Amino acid sequence: MEIASMNNDEKPSNFFTKGLLWFKSLHEKIFANIVGIAKQFKKNAKDDPRRVIHSLKVGLSLTLVSLFYYFQPLYNGFGVSTMWAIMTVVVVFEFSVGATLGKGLNRGMATLLAGALGVGAHYLASASGKVVEPILLGLFVFLQAFALTFIRFFPQVKARYDYGMLIFILTFCLVSISGFRVDEIVDLAHKRISTILMGASVCVIVSIFVCPVWAGEDLHKLVAKNMEKIGNFLEGFGDEIFKSSEDITESKVAKPSLIEYKSVLNSKNTEETLANFAKWEPGHGQFKYRHPWKQYLKIGGLIRQCACRIDALNGYINSEIKAPEEIKEMIKETSMKMSIECGKALKELSKSMRKMNLPISADEHVTNAKNSAKKLNSLLKSRINNWEEMNLLQVIPLTTIASILRDIVTCVEEIGQGVNELASLANFKTTKSSKEIINTNKVVVVEKIELSNNHVVITINEQNMKL
Amino acid sequence: MEIASMNNDEKPSNFFTKGLLWFKSLHEKIFANIVGIAKQFKKNAKDDPRRVIHSLKVGLSLTLVSLFYYFQPLYNGFGVSTMWAIMTVVVVFEFSVGATLGKGLNRGMATLLAGALGVGAHYLASASGKVVEPILLGLFVFLQAFALTFIRFFPQVKARYDYGMLIFILTFCLVSISGFRVDEIVDLAHKRISTILMGASVCVIVSIFVCPVWAGEDLHKLVAKNMEKIGNFLEGFGDEIFKSSEDITESKVAKPSLIEYKSVLNSKNTEETLANFAKWEPGHGQFKYRHPWKQYLKIGGLIRQCACRIDALNGYINSEIKAPEEIKEMIKETSMKMSIECGKALKELSKSMRKMNLPISADEHVTNAKNSAKKLNSLLKSRINNWEEMNLLQVIPLTTIASILRDIVTCVEEIGQGVNELASLANFKTTKSSKEIINTNKVVVVEKIELSNNHVVITINEQNMKL
Repeated sequence: MEIASMNNDEKPSNFFTKGLLWFKSLHEKIFANIVGIAKQFKKNAKDDPRRVIHSLKVGLSLTLVSLFYYFQPLYNGFGVSTMWAIMTVVVVFEFSVGATLGKGLNRGMATLLAGALGVGAHYLASASGKVVEPILLGLFVFLQAFALTFIRFFPQVKARYDYGMLIFILTFCLVSISGFRVDEIVDLAHKRISTILMGASVCVIVSIFVCPVWAGEDLHKLVAKNMEKIGNFLEGFGDEIFKSSEDITESKVAKPSLIEYKSVLNSKNTEETLANFAKWEPGHGQFKYRHPWKQYLKIGGLIRQCACRIDALNGYINSEIKAPEEIKEMIKETSMKMSIECGKALKELSKSMRKMNLPISADEHVTNAKNSAKKLNSLLKSRINNWEEMNLLQVIPLTTIASILRDIVTCVEEIGQGVNELASLANFKTTKSSKEIINTNKVVVVEKIELSNNHVVITINEQNMKL
Repeated sequence: MEIASMNNDEKPSNFFTKGLLWFKSLHEKIFANIVGIAKQFKKNAKDDPRRVIHSLKVGLSLTLVSLFYYFQPLYNGFGVSTMWAIMTVVVVFEFSVGATLGKGLNRGMATLLAGALGVGAHYLASASGKVVEPILLGLFVFLQAFALTFIRFFPQVKARYDYGMLIFILTFCLVSISGFRVDEIVDLAHKRISTILMGASVCVIVSIFVCPVWAGEDLHKLVAKNMEKIGNFLEGFGDEIFKSSEDITESKVAKPSLIEYKSVLNSKNTEETLANFAKWEPGHGQFKYRHPWKQYLKIGGLIRQCACRIDALNGYINSEIKAPEEIKEMIKETSMKMSIECGKALKELSKSMRKMNLPISADEHVTNAKNSAKKLNSLLKSRINNWEEMNLLQVIPLTTIASILRDIVTCVEEIGQGVNELASLANFKTTKSSKEIINTNKVVVVEKIELSNNHVVITINEQNMKL
């Protein structure tokens, strides 16, 4: 026995030990998996706590609807049709109010319409005799399935009524074909419609009145956030780009503010989806019904264009610039100013948009950036003394940065215009501080312009202006 | 009477005329609407004729499934459960095979699992007595709805198993709750599962065997097409950018080849959706099961990065460049070469990818482009004689174009590497012409290197190399 056990220790290829090891590793694997899944649960919940609430809301709605089954008087009224209420809740309940309302309305309208048409088709077919009936019904089913499936490809339909089309096909088929068997077809249609309406109502009520998630608000925040991300990049870029070569080796790890803009590049789809949902939503909080959601898409497009320029700019971070100090200094100051002012303008726009106030100082920042661009232009026009010491290759990174930044200034100006349009469309509030600025606005009257040895002296007179 | 009718002619505010006009305008409006819708039908069908075929396929499948209702022996077997087959067809049938298979498998698996668990939950609840039963069932429903709704937010689950999760919640609720009423719960579950499997099979069979639309093939073509679009832009850009000012005013209308790249910028979502569908598809045509679909997403990402650079470049089309001729000439030739060679490389890559051949001359074009970039660098390094006549501002557009083009060359090289990786992962074929190139490959042996007044003379000896 001793020898055998020694042998076991020496060669663990023994069946029992192997099994034990396998079991141990399996155990560890399962444990690691469970820990991994738990971590993912936690991360998901932390990323957006509304997800937990949404899950609770779905659970609540389903439990509410299933009460129809448990209570005898309710069940007696609808019978097996009650399952349509459960189905409706499972399928219609979406994360945001807009999506739920959109699906609910689509389902309700499509069921009503298709139910009515289905009953009509059934009567028409049954009036034509027992032989022709299935042929006629088959033809109806085929034709409406073909036509509606094709219509689902229309972009306008796909965006807002896709689900309704699907439910129309489904209900029409069920009602018209079932009619071939079930004699109480009107009763079937009636029960189905009322249970679906009940299910949809439960969804819509829970969705709106229990911690609602508004797609419109999400869109509003997303666009403002994207603007802020770009603003952060531009503010950070100003500091980062003209570092000396020692600083570069130190900070090889990119700052988070310089990476987060990348998510903006692919935000188009999310924005469009949210805008489509938002159109279904009633007025809520600061948003009225018929809030100009389209304008958000326009601003979003401009932001993405800007992000594209920034992506081109990003290649120059951490690249050592060997240009002569004179040129470097010349371009550095104005470029930094352009970048930082654009960043400030975007952050100001983002902030005022979030609070739905009229942007106060954004225009000023844009003007500053434009002035810097003009200043850069005139600096670049000026003669440089020591051309002999340098060549074009050294200057290229600098001039490219400057050139892209100039494009970005134009982009930011357009974004500012977009936000201003939004402000006037959605009646953004004038804040106290912006009122003060307007109240204390001064009229500057040019009194005298003198020309004296290379200088222009402009004498001005400030007057308080009342608005 | 005559006076009255004259009055009528004079003032058409008369009720009858008004009604007639209204009717006429309504008639015209309706007619215009019908014409508009018909045009849209035609356009949609022309854009992608597969849409018409898909609609016909849906009609066909539904008609096939509805046969279950018409034929007595079939109907006797399943009864009202037949409607699950119809529902499955309406909901599961998607445009591409991958999407249909994915939804079908999700639905099938989820129904099986949730059906089994639902029956289990029902027995567990009913064993606990008439009072506790509904409470326990309600708890089960709430808990599983909560947990699964939350799991649906996991990105990996959302991408591939979202529909399965939905059906799981639905089936579990229906089976466990219905069990509270219907005594033949096993029979219900069995009927539901078999009708769903039938419906799903009809979908999958029609989808695969009647003019199949493969998501994988679409992804393959989309990526190749995007590459071609970028290639077209770069080829066209070379001609467009250094036009004289007269040419510019002539061609204010942008060429289509210079706009179509814009669609590439927002293709991420489509590519990811197609890749997710493609993973469900069996091998078909040139694509085996487990074709490296992920690599397409990688290449797609690189193409979008390139498109972003191109968007920055696009701002310089039609802008007049006032730089001195010397510099213009210097940069023009190499930039054009860079742009055109990149364009050729991309088009070659796109072509070989489409045919699933090894790219033959793409590397050569990339090398040419890189050589041009190097040449440009050395030109830019060289001293320029008449600096006095120019300033940096004039040079900026030129140098920016050159700089962005240099970035694009790097992008194109990376795309080339991506395609080569794909070629080795997916075993692209060697074409006859690429074989010939390999066969006639020569080994160049350097025989002698001489140095004589500023020249290096290298004598080489070509040898045929056999592979």
